Amino acid sequence: MTVSPETRPLVFATLTDAVAALRQRGLRLSTPRRLVLEALFVADRPVSAEQISERLKLDPTSVYRNLETLERHGLVRHVHLGHGPGLYALLLHGEDEYLFCERCGAVSAVPAEALDAVRERVRERFGYEVHFAHFAIVGTCRTCSQEHQP
Amino acid sequence: MTVSPETRPLVFATLTDAVAALRQRGLRLSTPRRLVLEALFVADRPVSAEQISERLKLDPTSVYRNLETLERHGLVRHVHLGHGPGLYALLLHGEDEYLFCERCGAVSAVPAEALDAVRERVRERFGYEVHFAHFAIVGTCRTCSQEHQP
Repeated sequence: MTVSPETRPLVFATLTDAVAALRQRGLRLSTPRRLVLEALFVADRPVSAEQISERLKLDPTSVYRNLETLERHGLVRHVHLGHGPGLYALLLHGEDEYLFCERCGAVSAVPAEALDAVRERVRERFGYEVHFAHFAIVGTCRTCSQEHQP
Repeated sequence: MTVSPETRPLVFATLTDAVAALRQRGLRLSTPRRLVLEALFVADRPVSAEQISERLKLDPTSVYRNLETLERHGLVRHVHLGHGPGLYALLLHGEDEYLFCERCGAVSAVPAEALDAVRERVRERFGYEVHFAHFAIVGTCRTCSQEHQP
């Protein structure tokens, strides 16, 4: 079972910055770790350890461990989009939250502020403090909702 | 992988009603099926197939199949509370939606209308049609949020 890490996100914008941040924390930058980091930089949506391992032809266990290390150091977070395993994304612009279309698989990453009004409604009504960074909001996107209107 | 069934919920309020509804649909009410139904009636929160199987000393596969049948016929729905397997609950009062506290494990089942304002906010801002019956809203409940305030 994955847990939601409470590490503070690191601030970085480029691969060079990320590498520098890791080195500053005394973290060794092995070739697989660098490749995993690069794969996350080129991905346009959260990806699974398995997808990275297939793309890079690297051992899945090694990819998974590297993702865990990067997550522990605040460079990466995982999110659950409905069913399925944790998917990993860089914390480039701070912590995004997610909406997931269970019909077409579309993913919308949105900055946390964009969901503050939703959060406020839930807090007022139920007293819960909620976040959609670890577990996405699941539903149907605009296109799928329009296509399936009665 | 579980799928969100699109069966219409059946209307029933008591075990007798549920049994009658099943019989009306020509469904055989074997002893294990009746026991599973009873276990759901006494549960005060969604339960896993495994929990029911342990409580009833029934084969897990048989419990799981019976739950699937009951779900297909609109008496039961499963929900995912954060990580972990689908948990099953009766559709007694129509379809509830869920909030889940990932700190203490509390579950709040709320009627769908109670979340309409939240749904409306998400629709306005992102165009998504969202529901929290299959995947709960995850966060920390009022008590846990107050305990962990800085």
